[in-house]
Amino acid sequence: MNLTHIEHIGIAVKSIDEAKKYYEDILGLKCYAVEEVPDQKVKTAFFMVGQTKIELLESTYSDGPIGKFIEKKGEGIHHIAFAVKGLQDSLDEIKSKNIILIDEKSRKGAEGLNIAFLHPKSTFGVLTELCEKPI
Amino acid sequence: MNLTHIEHIGIAVKSIDEAKKYYEDILGLKCYAVEEVPDQKVKTAFFMVGQTKIELLESTYSDGPIGKFIEKKGEGIHHIAFAVKGLQDSLDEIKSKNIILIDEKSRKGAEGLNIAFLHPKSTFGVLTELCEKPI
Repeated sequence: MNLTHIEHIGIAVKSIDEAKKYYEDILGLKCYAVEEVPDQKVKTAFFMVGQTKIELLESTYSDGPIGKFIEKKGEGIHHIAFAVKGLQDSLDEIKSKNIILIDEKSRKGAEGLNIAFLHPKSTFGVLTELCEKPI
Repeated sequence: MNLTHIEHIGIAVKSIDEAKKYYEDILGLKCYAVEEVPDQKVKTAFFMVGQTKIELLESTYSDGPIGKFIEKKGEGIHHIAFAVKGLQDSLDEIKSKNIILIDEKSRKGAEGLNIAFLHPKSTFGVLTELCEKPI
């Protein structure tokens, strides 16, 4: 397994418009992209800080994963995504070590990345994403 | 405000000994330090990935902040810490913009850093730490 850095931190918010003001006006970060991911029923907004992106996630449907998360836990940090070299090999290796995968095969996420999630039951409560830029 | 990178991500765990196995054996990261912070009633374990540290936090007393967090929410991501240039000036600026600070003056955290927390009520649910290496 070769994790190179933290690619992004996903944060569930009720309103990107509202939360964006905090990240821009208070923390001084700049939103460089807003993108909808219909597959995940979310709108996303991205900010870069060092090597890592802050990814704000707003639910576009209340029955989507982010809508359900906010209903249960409130706004807050939703997941961590590690950049990895060799995503599919890593998933195969993780599975062989009895970690529960949400995605056994990678799929497309925001910004065109190949992504896959590990189940928080196997990761001490942290919803964990692995991602890789397509070659 | 000048945030340079994500200094660390704090993750609340019941047992560092147990969680460490996952970060080392599954994710392939290396624990380079274990440190107790009596002031915070926690034991910490650090792993580096790119510019950012994963900081595992285990409560040393059940009435400490991490013990209470786990009791209420379970294990999982506890806070994000941004590295900032000019910590005290940044805190003063944030306060002037009506953000609630947990620490109006910085204090000593793990690894000898000067640290201060912003209140999640003002940060869309994300317990947010700012930190700076002492000069």
